[in-house]
Amino acid sequence: MDIATLLGIVSGTGLVLAAIIAGGGAIAFFNVPAILITVGGTIAATLINFPLSKVIGVFSVVKKTLLCKLPSAIGEIERIVKLAKVARSEGLLALENVLEEVKDPFLQKGIQLLVDGTEPEVLQDVLATELEQLRARHGLGKKILESMGAAAPAFGMIGTLIGLVQMLRNLQDPAGIGLGMSTALLTTFYGSLMANLIFLPLAGKLDMRSKQEMVSRQLIIEGVAAIQAGLNPRLIEEKLKSFVAPKQRSQLAAARSAT
Amino acid sequence: MDIATLLGIVSGTGLVLAAIIAGGGAIAFFNVPAILITVGGTIAATLINFPLSKVIGVFSVVKKTLLCKLPSAIGEIERIVKLAKVARSEGLLALENVLEEVKDPFLQKGIQLLVDGTEPEVLQDVLATELEQLRARHGLGKKILESMGAAAPAFGMIGTLIGLVQMLRNLQDPAGIGLGMSTALLTTFYGSLMANLIFLPLAGKLDMRSKQEMVSRQLIIEGVAAIQAGLNPRLIEEKLKSFVAPKQRSQLAAARSAT
Amino acid sequence: MDIATLLGIVSGTGLVLAAIIAGGGAIAFFNVPAILITVGGTIAATLINFPLSKVIGVFSVVKKTLLCKLPSAIGEIERIVKLAKVARSEGLLALENVLEEVKDPFLQKGIQLLVDGTEPEVLQDVLATELEQLRARHGLGKKILESMGAAAPAFGMIGTLIGLVQMLRNLQDPAGIGLGMSTALLTTFYGSLMANLIFLPLAGKLDMRSKQEMVSRQLIIEGVAAIQAGLNPRLIEEKLKSFVAPKQRSQLAAARSAT
Amino acid sequence: MDIATLLGIVSGTGLVLAAIIAGGGAIAFFNVPAILITVGGTIAATLINFPLSKVIGVFSVVKKTLLCKLPSAIGEIERIVKLAKVARSEGLLALENVLEEVKDPFLQKGIQLLVDGTEPEVLQDVLATELEQLRARHGLGKKILESMGAAAPAFGMIGTLIGLVQMLRNLQDPAGIGLGMSTALLTTFYGSLMANLIFLPLAGKLDMRSKQEMVSRQLIIEGVAAIQAGLNPRLIEEKLKSFVAPKQRSQLAAARSAT
Amino acid sequence: MDIATLLGIVSGTGLVLAAIIAGGGAIAFFNVPAILITVGGTIAATLINFPLSKVIGVFSVVKKTLLCKLPSAIGEIERIVKLAKVARSEGLLALENVLEEVKDPFLQKGIQLLVDGTEPEVLQDVLATELEQLRARHGLGKKILESMGAAAPAFGMIGTLIGLVQMLRNLQDPAGIGLGMSTALLTTFYGSLMANLIFLPLAGKLDMRSKQEMVSRQLIIEGVAAIQAGLNPRLIEEKLKSFVAPKQRSQLAAARSAT
Repeated sequence: MDIATLLGIVSGTGLVLAAIIAGGGAIAFFNVPAILITVGGTIAATLINFPLSKVIGVFSVVKKTLLCKLPSAIGEIERIVKLAKVARSEGLLALENVLEEVKDPFLQKGIQLLVDGTEPEVLQDVLATELEQLRARHGLGKKILESMGAAAPAFGMIGTLIGLVQMLRNLQDPAGIGLGMSTALLTTFYGSLMANLIFLPLAGKLDMRSKQEMVSRQLIIEGVAAIQAGLNPRLIEEKLKSFVAPKQRSQLAAARSAT
Repeated sequence: MDIATLLGIVSGTGLVLAAIIAGGGAIAFFNVPAILITVGGTIAATLINFPLSKVIGVFSVVKKTLLCKLPSAIGEIERIVKLAKVARSEGLLALENVLEEVKDPFLQKGIQLLVDGTEPEVLQDVLATELEQLRARHGLGKKILESMGAAAPAFGMIGTLIGLVQMLRNLQDPAGIGLGMSTALLTTFYGSLMANLIFLPLAGKLDMRSKQEMVSRQLIIEGVAAIQAGLNPRLIEEKLKSFVAPKQRSQLAAARSAT
Repeated sequence: MDIATLLGIVSGTGLVLAAIIAGGGAIAFFNVPAILITVGGTIAATLINFPLSKVIGVFSVVKKTLLCKLPSAIGEIERIVKLAKVARSEGLLALENVLEEVKDPFLQKGIQLLVDGTEPEVLQDVLATELEQLRARHGLGKKILESMGAAAPAFGMIGTLIGLVQMLRNLQDPAGIGLGMSTALLTTFYGSLMANLIFLPLAGKLDMRSKQEMVSRQLIIEGVAAIQAGLNPRLIEEKLKSFVAPKQRSQLAAARSAT
Repeated sequence: MDIATLLGIVSGTGLVLAAIIAGGGAIAFFNVPAILITVGGTIAATLINFPLSKVIGVFSVVKKTLLCKLPSAIGEIERIVKLAKVARSEGLLALENVLEEVKDPFLQKGIQLLVDGTEPEVLQDVLATELEQLRARHGLGKKILESMGAAAPAFGMIGTLIGLVQMLRNLQDPAGIGLGMSTALLTTFYGSLMANLIFLPLAGKLDMRSKQEMVSRQLIIEGVAAIQAGLNPRLIEEKLKSFVAPKQRSQLAAARSAT
Repeated sequence: MDIATLLGIVSGTGLVLAAIIAGGGAIAFFNVPAILITVGGTIAATLINFPLSKVIGVFSVVKKTLLCKLPSAIGEIERIVKLAKVARSEGLLALENVLEEVKDPFLQKGIQLLVDGTEPEVLQDVLATELEQLRARHGLGKKILESMGAAAPAFGMIGTLIGLVQMLRNLQDPAGIGLGMSTALLTTFYGSLMANLIFLPLAGKLDMRSKQEMVSRQLIIEGVAAIQAGLNPRLIEEKLKSFVAPKQRSQLAAARSAT
C-alpha cells in the first residue's frame, strides 16, 4: 500500500479523534442521522450525476491505485532491453517463449501483438487506444471524487440548515438550544472532513498516479515499437532513458555495471 | 429510465424527508411563500438569461436523457455491419428495402442519403452539421442547468435576508424570534437542496450523456462513410471496434461466434 | 422587447415585492442611504475599472439587445437569395436599385461595396473588421455587467459592515439592536438582488444574443461573397441553409413552396 | 488624469464616508491598529509573493496609467502619414530632421532605427521585443494588484479573528462586548473596501489600458515597417485605419478634408 | 536570502504578534491542540494527495529558491561571450581548461557536452530534457504549496467546528461560553494565517522564480548552441541580449566599455 496515503489518512483521522476525545464527550460526535444525511446525500447526488457502473468502478480504481505498487521505470527499461536482446539474437518469434515471464499485462499484450506479426501502425493504434481508455477511466475517477468533494460540504450544510430550523422552533426550551445547535453543526463537520481528508486528496492522488502510469505506458509503447523496428538494444536503452529523471538514470548505470 | 438517476433522486429526497420527519414538526418545512421566492426567483433569473424556448427545451432534453435508453455501441456496430453486407452483396440501392427496419433516425438519415446517391463530402457535411446541432443543444442545456444551480442558492439567500430583516424589526416579541429565523432559513435550505440534489447533478448527467451520444453518432458517421466507400464488412467492424472499450469488444466477439 | 427578459424581470421583482409586503412593514425595505451605498459603490468601482464611455455604452447595448428583434435567419436567407437573383439576371450594378429596400445596415453596407466594385479580399476584410468590432463591443459589455455583478454584493457587504459597526457601538439601547441590524442587512439584500436578478442574467443574455448576431452576420458575409462570385441563387440557398437548425430549414422549404 | 478613475475613487470614498458620518461616531471607524494589520498584512504577503522591485514598480505603472493620456489612434495615424510623406519625398535620411518633433518615445525609437538604416527584420525584432517587455510589465502589474485584492480581505478576516478571540475572553464585561466586536469587524471592513474600491478595479483598468496601448504600439510598428518599405502614404493610411473603430475613421476623414 | 521574502515574513508575523500583544493575553493565542489539528490536518491531506518524497522535496526547493541568489542575466551573457572567445581562438577543446572556472552546473554540463564532441541535436535534447525536469519540479512544488494553502483554512474550520460542538454542549456554564468559542476560533485563525502569509505567497514566489530560472537556462542553451555553431562572439552577445530588458542592456554596454 502507498505509505504516504496510509500515513495521511491514519494521522489525519487520529488528530481529529484526539481533538474530539480531549474535549470530552466524544460520543456526541457520533450521530447516526447526521452521518446518514451527509454520506447519503453525497452518494445520492453522485448517482444522479454519474452512471452507476462508473461510481462503483471508482472505488476499485482508488483501491488499485493505493494497493498496487507502480513498477519502477528503471525495471521497466531493463525488462524491455532484455526482450530486445532476445528479439535481436533469436528473432521476434522467440519472444513467445519468454511471454509468460512478462508480468505487466500491457507489455504482455504488446509482445503478443509483436509475435502475431501485427502491422506496426495497427500495433501502435491498439496500444494507444488502450492507453486512452485508461486515461479516460482515471480522468472520470478524478471527476467523480472531485464532485463528491463538492457535494459532501453542500449536504453537510443542508443537514445543518434542517437542524437549525428544528432547533429554532423550540427556543422555549433553553436547555435544548445548545444541544440542538451542536447536533446541527455535526453534518457540516462531517461534510468538511470527508471532502478535505478523503475525497479531494484522493482525487489529487489519482491524478498524480494517472500521470505516472501514462508515462510508464508510453515508455512501453516506444519500447515495443523499437523492438519491432529491430533497433540495437543499446540504442533502445538510450532512447527510453529520456523518460526518467537524471537521478534515476545513474541507478540504471549502476544496475548495468553490477551485472 | 436511468436507474441511477432515479435511485439518486429518490434516496436523496427520502433521506432529507426522513431527517425532517425524525426531528418532528415536518409541516414547518413546507412553506409556500418560501418555495415561491426560491423557485420563482430561480426561474425569473433563468428567463432573463436564456431565450424562453431554450428554457422550455431543457426540460424535454432532460426528460429524453433520463427516459430513453442509449442504444449499445455493440448493437450499433452489428447493425451497421449488417447493412454493409447488404450493400456489398446487393448494391447501395438495396439498402432502401431495409431502411424501415432501421430505428435510429440518425442512422436512417445517413442510409437515406446513401440511397439518394449523395456525394461523400456533402453526406459527411450534412451528418456533421446535425451532430454539431445536437452538441450545441446539449451544451446549452448543461449551461442552463448550471446557471439554475447558481441562481437557486442565491435566491435562497435573498429570501433569508428578507426574512431576517422582517424578524429583526419585531424583536420585542421574543416568541417570534425563533419562528421568524427558522422560516427565514427555509429559503436557503430550499435553494441549497435544489442546486445540489437537482440542478448541478443533472447538468453533470447531461454532460456525460452528451459525450456518450456524440461517440455513438461519430461511430454511425464513420460506418456510413465506410459503406459508401464499399469497404469489406469485416474491415468496417474492425474500424468501428476502436470506438468501444476492450471489455465490450469481447461481447462483440461472443455475439459473433454465437451466430 | 424580448418577452422572456421582461417576464423574468417583472416576475422576479414581483415575487420579491410580494414576499416583502406579505411580511408587513414593506416601507422598512426602502432605505435611501442603503441604496446609495450599494448602487453608488458598484458604479464607482465600475468607473475605476472601465473607461467612462464604455460604461455609458453598455446601457445602450443592453437596451438595443432587449428592444430590437433579431431578424430571423430564414428571412435573411430569403432576402439574400432574392438579391442573388437580381444580380444574376441584371448584373451586380442592378443591385443599386434595390439597395433602399434592404433594411439591415450590415447587409446594406455589403451590397454597397458590391456595387462599388470592391475587390473580393477588401470586401471580406471590411465586413470581417466590422464583425470583430461588434464582437468586441458585446464582449466588453458582458465583462462590464459581470464586473458589476461581482461589485454589487461586495458593496452590499461593505454597507452591512458599516451598519454593524455602528449598531454594535450602541448596544446599551436594546430596542435599537434589531432595528440597526435589520438596516445593516438591507445593503447585502440590495447587492444580492441586483447581482442575481439584473447584472448576471443580463450578462448571460448579452452573451447569447452576441453569439446569435455573429452567426447572422457571418451568414451575410458568406452570402455577399457568393453573390460576388456569381454563384447560382439555388446553390447560395443550399450553402446558407447550413447555418440554420433542421427544424427551421423545413420552414424555408414551406415558404418556398408557398411562393 | 483619467477622469472616470478619479470620479470613481472620489465618489466611492465619498459615499462610504457619508454613510459613516450619517450614522454618527465617525471617529470609531478610524482605528490605527486595525489599519496597520490589514494594510501591513497585505503588503507583507505581496512582498513574499513578488520581487521587491516589481512591487515598487507597480505603483509607478499605475500612476503613469492614470496620469498620462493615451495619444489618440487618429493622431497617431496622422503623424505617421506625415512622416511617410517626408520619407517619400526627401528620402529616409530626411526623417532625422523631424525626429525631434516626435514626442512618443516608441515612435521616435522606430524612426531612429529607420534613419540608422537598420535591416527590416532586426527593426521588427527590436520593436516587438520592446512591446513584449511592456506587455509583461503591465501583466505583472495586474497580477500584483489582483493578488493584493485577494490578500486584503484575507488579512481583514485575520484581524477580525484576532479581535473576536480577544473580545470573547472578556465576556464578563458586557459593555465591552459590542465595542470589542465592532472594533474586530473594522479590519474586515478595511480589507473589503481596499479590495473592491482600489485593488480589483485598478487591476481591471491596467488590463484595459494595456490592451489599448498594445494596439497603439502595433499600429506604430506597422506604420514604421510601411515607411521603410516605401509604400504610398495614402496606402499606409488605408492600412492603419483598420486598427480604429468605424466611428473614429470618419473623424479621420473629417480631419483630412479640413486640411 | 531573498530580502523581500524575509521582510514580508518578518513584518507580517510582527504585525500579527503586535496586534495580539496589544490586545493583552497573548498567551491565549498559543494553543497546542489547536496548532496540532490545523498543521497536522494540513500535512495529512498533503500526504494523501502527493507522494511522500515530493512533499519532502518541496521544502528543499523552497529553501533553495529563497537562499540562492539567481545569477544575473548580464553576468551570464558575459561569461558565455568569454567562453565563445576562447572557443573561437583556441578551438572547442580548449574549453576543457576553463571548465573548472564555470560555477553554474547547467552551463558546466553544456560545456562538457561541447568538449565531448556531442552532436548538436543530442546536446539540445539533453539540455532541454534537464530544463523540462526542473520546470516539472518547480510546477509540482507550486501545486503542493497551493494545495496546502487550500487545506489549511479547511482544517482550521474543521477545528473550529469541533470546538463549537463541544462548547455548545456545555452552555449551562456561561463563563465557559466565551472561552470555548475563543478557543474554537483559534484554529480558523491559524489556518487563515498559514495560508495567506506562508503557503499562497510562497507558491507565487516559486512560480515567479521558476519563470526567471527558465529564461536564464534558455539563454544558456542558446549560448552553447551558438558556440558550437562557431558564431562570432560579438553576434552571440547581440543574440543573447534579446533575453534581457532594455534597462539591463545598457548595464551590459557600460560593463563592456569599462573593460
